[in-house]
Amino acid sequence: MAGIVPAAVDSVEVTGGNLVLVIVVALIALGALAMAYVFRSEVLSAPEGTDNMKTIAQAVQEGADAYLQRQFRTLAVFAGVAFFALLALPADEFSVRIFRSVFFLVGAGFSAAVGYLGMSLAVRANLRVAAAANTVGREPAMTIGLRTGAMVGMLTVGLGLLGASLVVIFFQEDAPDVLEGFGFGAALLAMFMRVGGGIFTKAADVGADLVGKVENNIPEDDPRNAATIADNVGDNVGDCAGMAADLFESYAVTLVAALILGAQAFGDKGLVYPLLIPAIGALTAVLGAYITKPTAGVNGLSTINRGFYISAGIGAVASVVLSFLYLPTSFADFGEQGSVLDLISKDATPDGNPALIASIAVVIGIVLAAAILALTGYYTGTEYKPVKDVGKTSLTGAATVILSGLSVGFESAVYTTLVLGAAVFGAFLLGTGSLAISLFAVALAGCGLLTTVGSIVAMDTFGPVSDNAQGVAEMSGDVSPEGAQILTDLDAVGNTTKAITKGIAIATAVLAATALFGSYATTALEKLADANAQDNELFSLFVFDPSVLVGVLLGSAVVFLFSGLAINAVARAAGAVVYEVRRQFREIPGIMEGTGRPEYGKVVDIVTRDSLRELVTPGVLAVMAPIAVGFGLGFTALAGFLAGAIGTGTLMAVFLANAGGAWDNAKKLVEDGAHGGKGSDAHAATVIGDTVGDPFKDTAGPAINPLIKVMNLVSLLIASAVVSLSIGDDKNDAARIAIALVAVAIIAVVIVISKRRESVIGDEVPSPTTLA
Amino acid sequence: MAGIVPAAVDSVEVTGGNLVLVIVVALIALGALAMAYVFRSEVLSAPEGTDNMKTIAQAVQEGADAYLQRQFRTLAVFAGVAFFALLALPADEFSVRIFRSVFFLVGAGFSAAVGYLGMSLAVRANLRVAAAANTVGREPAMTIGLRTGAMVGMLTVGLGLLGASLVVIFFQEDAPDVLEGFGFGAALLAMFMRVGGGIFTKAADVGADLVGKVENNIPEDDPRNAATIADNVGDNVGDCAGMAADLFESYAVTLVAALILGAQAFGDKGLVYPLLIPAIGALTAVLGAYITKPTAGVNGLSTINRGFYISAGIGAVASVVLSFLYLPTSFADFGEQGSVLDLISKDATPDGNPALIASIAVVIGIVLAAAILALTGYYTGTEYKPVKDVGKTSLTGAATVILSGLSVGFESAVYTTLVLGAAVFGAFLLGTGSLAISLFAVALAGCGLLTTVGSIVAMDTFGPVSDNAQGVAEMSGDVSPEGAQILTDLDAVGNTTKAITKGIAIATAVLAATALFGSYATTALEKLADANAQDNELFSLFVFDPSVLVGVLLGSAVVFLFSGLAINAVARAAGAVVYEVRRQFREIPGIMEGTGRPEYGKVVDIVTRDSLRELVTPGVLAVMAPIAVGFGLGFTALAGFLAGAIGTGTLMAVFLANAGGAWDNAKKLVEDGAHGGKGSDAHAATVIGDTVGDPFKDTAGPAINPLIKVMNLVSLLIASAVVSLSIGDDKNDAARIAIALVAVAIIAVVIVISKRRESVIGDEVPSPTTLA
Repeated sequence: MAGIVPAAVDSVEVTGGNLVLVIVVALIALGALAMAYVFRSEVLSAPEGTDNMKTIAQAVQEGADAYLQRQFRTLAVFAGVAFFALLALPADEFSVRIFRSVFFLVGAGFSAAVGYLGMSLAVRANLRVAAAANTVGREPAMTIGLRTGAMVGMLTVGLGLLGASLVVIFFQEDAPDVLEGFGFGAALLAMFMRVGGGIFTKAADVGADLVGKVENNIPEDDPRNAATIADNVGDNVGDCAGMAADLFESYAVTLVAALILGAQAFGDKGLVYPLLIPAIGALTAVLGAYITKPTAGVNGLSTINRGFYISAGIGAVASVVLSFLYLPTSFADFGEQGSVLDLISKDATPDGNPALIASIAVVIGIVLAAAILALTGYYTGTEYKPVKDVGKTSLTGAATVILSGLSVGFESAVYTTLVLGAAVFGAFLLGTGSLAISLFAVALAGCGLLTTVGSIVAMDTFGPVSDNAQGVAEMSGDVSPEGAQILTDLDAVGNTTKAITKGIAIATAVLAATALFGSYATTALEKLADANAQDNELFSLFVFDPSVLVGVLLGSAVVFLFSGLAINAVARAAGAVVYEVRRQFREIPGIMEGTGRPEYGKVVDIVTRDSLRELVTPGVLAVMAPIAVGFGLGFTALAGFLAGAIGTGTLMAVFLANAGGAWDNAKKLVEDGAHGGKGSDAHAATVIGDTVGDPFKDTAGPAINPLIKVMNLVSLLIASAVVSLSIGDDKNDAARIAIALVAVAIIAVVIVISKRRESVIGDEVPSPTTLA
Repeated sequence: MAGIVPAAVDSVEVTGGNLVLVIVVALIALGALAMAYVFRSEVLSAPEGTDNMKTIAQAVQEGADAYLQRQFRTLAVFAGVAFFALLALPADEFSVRIFRSVFFLVGAGFSAAVGYLGMSLAVRANLRVAAAANTVGREPAMTIGLRTGAMVGMLTVGLGLLGASLVVIFFQEDAPDVLEGFGFGAALLAMFMRVGGGIFTKAADVGADLVGKVENNIPEDDPRNAATIADNVGDNVGDCAGMAADLFESYAVTLVAALILGAQAFGDKGLVYPLLIPAIGALTAVLGAYITKPTAGVNGLSTINRGFYISAGIGAVASVVLSFLYLPTSFADFGEQGSVLDLISKDATPDGNPALIASIAVVIGIVLAAAILALTGYYTGTEYKPVKDVGKTSLTGAATVILSGLSVGFESAVYTTLVLGAAVFGAFLLGTGSLAISLFAVALAGCGLLTTVGSIVAMDTFGPVSDNAQGVAEMSGDVSPEGAQILTDLDAVGNTTKAITKGIAIATAVLAATALFGSYATTALEKLADANAQDNELFSLFVFDPSVLVGVLLGSAVVFLFSGLAINAVARAAGAVVYEVRRQFREIPGIMEGTGRPEYGKVVDIVTRDSLRELVTPGVLAVMAPIAVGFGLGFTALAGFLAGAIGTGTLMAVFLANAGGAWDNAKKLVEDGAHGGKGSDAHAATVIGDTVGDPFKDTAGPAINPLIKVMNLVSLLIASAVVSLSIGDDKNDAARIAIALVAVAIIAVVIVISKRRESVIGDEVPSPTTLA
């Protein structure tokens, strides 16, 4: 045993100068929240436009509010169950159990708050952007969109940093355990918001398209289509609230992973340093918001990218300087508290320079963000070869559009994964043989990535705001052709920024998950040491164990199942939309002539109900699958499961996001006049591609990021219990198998229930049960 | 170190009664080959039909022969390079190095022979089936198709068993090393045949459809389309030669894995028992061929399934009886030679009953085959809900057809993977704590699966023969409506049997790969013991190492890259077909009126050249990727790489095969009159689905099976070298990195070259370079 199992972390306390620094970080976090308020006021001070615009925006606001409120009520049940389940899980001290659960609720609440507050500003910003485009021109319009994004970015960064720094201040050496709860709460809520919002937005979008464009030949955002308001609500609850919560979760979980690993690698400074780097990011994000100035004659995406690169560059330089100021240049200098625990040998003091290692790790993360920005831009941007090629294949029909888009997805996933793999391996090599330092370096690369999150969130939110502004303008009929063209251009910019955000989000998943994987290992190994394990039990930790392979198979399978469930859920909910809109056309006289008014709220209600119902299955799967594998097949299989889910999940997430992005922009190319333009056969072919891509890029793809994090955090939380029941003195196979069977049964039940909700797509007379 | 590293296998010799048994197996193998000859004569004795049929069949035969001959010339270069590369790899003795390389050539030759001989009978059987359907009715026609399949089945089983038993007879304790060469040869050649044939068949099919059905509105197999002969040639070189070689490879590699692991678990009997089980399979396959009697009024698929289930059941019973007759019921009874090496403890004699363990393992394999048959039938058969649902979505257009087909693919992949995971885990549990026995049990489950391969190959070959018979009949214009209906029905049966075969093939990949993964482990561990490794080096074997995660990421990425490359290759080659057929329509007068004759041979030449050129990139990737990962990132990362490739590969293979199968049969449903029938919008939507599915199910999907095996075998072959250069006395990082960089450079070069061959799909005036 000796030499393999790490000793427990010595009592690591954050005192003196370190404590002051963490308090400074908390103050910076409060400052970020104040900036969010400033940006919010700036947006709300802009004029609201015509009465028509106000009416439409009002309907969208009400729909979005109603959805989120019902969603929060549903999720409160899940959160309550999870709260008590967490309380039941073992921890070193009872107080830790309590506070882990309490901070689970805090994390979940923060996640919800970011989503809700971000969205409620976005639905107020959309008509202001439309009004500005119509009256004062592109630059003011774009500025309103950017400020909305900046507000959400500041909120994300502020709440993430505030939560983490408060936990460190108050819980000291117990901070890692409490943080697990905080991260889990953020991730769980974000996953549900991402899945539910993703289903909502695409069910409304696909349903509206099928019944509007395909069946009745009326354009997108046409007020005669009863699903148009729901479609615009969807942009907000999916792309805005869902994505904002997801990015908050990415922020929180990455920070949590770094703090959990920090104490083991760098002692007390390891609990402080991971907070300092994102604090720099908060400052550069404010800077970025102010230097991103729309200029006449400069492409909107260039303006945004320029702001990103400048603030990322400044962040990198500042991080390196801070690292050398704060960290020693030799591990020996960490002093008594920096006992640099090493999984191999507790007493060895590694060679190498902590300040240099940390600097390089952080820079790896920042470079990774820039690389993903460039790669995603290349594969989904209209000006590059991949999307142009997809557009070209529209001349030979929809089948070749689909195949070429899939190829773009496969290829971009591979290269993105190679870049990610290189980043992880590069950070890993920094450990110079110490696993603890390697893992911390991976987590620090994640922190480097976090310095860019403020700007990334801002870019992302810009997407739904400009999309909605176009919708409001179109439906109001009050916008001049010049104004409409401005909004179309802003929407295209938003499409690319949304794709980039997804790439960054999955990158945080890989870095955080790799680091959490390490925490899982440490927890399992510590527990093994306690459990008086035999040598042959230890042996089962080896990678060359077929149960690892079975775990990998299952981990990969969960990603496929989750993706399939999400896509199916969209198809089912879209079918219900089609059915309702058809009913309204049939029963409300004069809709097509413009004399009758469709019941928009009815469609919003239906999509709300269906997407809340549909989010249960994938959500339950994410929580229960690691429980089933861990307790059922053992902790080695669970490690394989996590590895399989991370591997397949990364590729699948990028594949789905970029294939969808490429199809969307190939359609835009044709609509801008290529290959015959709007109304041609080529256009019809690209519309099919875009419809296939909708649930790829906005439902299944982005939900894989929180899926990976939730599964990792669940595994981390159950690791001790799994080991206790599997090995040594407390071995209890009956209890272990019973827990696994319950988890399997729960998964089976929710899947069977969701299968019984058949799709009505294709049914000319849908079965009444479907809409009951 | 002690207690972790296994001792080398004691000199295990096959003598006395055991030797006699192996000789009996070799004689059974020769008997199987004799039966293949009998079935062949039976097929060739059937009448050949009208002169028109003969002319058409002649053209197909010539095209297929020409393709395979050029392919073998190309592959001879690869085989030559691999031969010398193998010679250069280390082995315990020089003679082993020589014979490993020689048997590499034997394995490759056998693989080629199965493909070539099977195809050359199939192209002679197609017109005989057409003639029989036209003159004597369904049952004789189906019998000719079934006998053709039985011939290929006997050939596969006979050559596989013959090769393996000869190696055991002549090489005794060195057999495992020599068998690595045999298996690698079979797998490498099969992968190239599968990829090249897969690209050929779908390039011709998609190209013919795009230019015929889409552009000129003429039906499939219309003689005015210059690509029709190429399309029919494709069925033979892809579905017949490619698949037969692949199944031979599955047979050989599974057997090799079992024999490699057998000696460690069961001593000398472990080198004999894995041959006995497939020998039973050879006998039951002959039985199956004779009891599968087409009967008037009984669905063709039911007849085939009935034959399968009966022979599988008999095989199961016979295997259990033989196990109890041949194997002892206690490990202690293995005697001196059965030293039951255990990775944990060499001296421990495991509890448990070897005869029972082996029986259960074999039965697990047989049940697995039956389960996959049932699952695949459910997800791709026209009579079940999934395909019916896909058909229904055709009413809302192509986008919903694509989405629902993707969902079927995702879902079926998950359930197939769960069944596979359960089989592996079940076999694994049989080891009762001994890793060596667990791994052998997994390999024996593979052998159980092998007992059904004779019948499976027969079912598979039935597919292209009936497909081609329909093509010959259609083009000849000599077949009555009744005859045509018979051939259409047989073709539909063939579609499902082809899908089932793919499921079984990927199952063999998982079982063989898991077992080979174990061999890789053993080799690496043995080498570690020799290398005077330090404890901290050993530590890197733990699963909880981030480099494993990087390996898993890369393994998953290779599967995505390989799939993307294969689909892209089809798109590119199909583009060249479209271009050539358009040229012929333009330049040869009177084609459309039926007065001018298209130059069929020209299209066959183009597809031949393009598919041979296109197979290089995925082929090189499969061989070089494990070399790059192993030497570049170390043997732990390589283990993760293999696990990632197996996990993602299994799901992707089943997903691609079943989504493609579901789309194909959804189209058949509509063509049979559902949802508006032929010519309706619904039909157009399903045609798009089918075209997307073509490269899924016949190119990318089935090629993943040999991909996984080739990567596993390459890893096994380089394992010693990787460990030697990484650790201990012979550590040489410069050499290691240099080898990895060369491998990466080779991959990069072939990918860049293939990217420069742009697709002409969508080009109205294709660039002349594309067709140069």
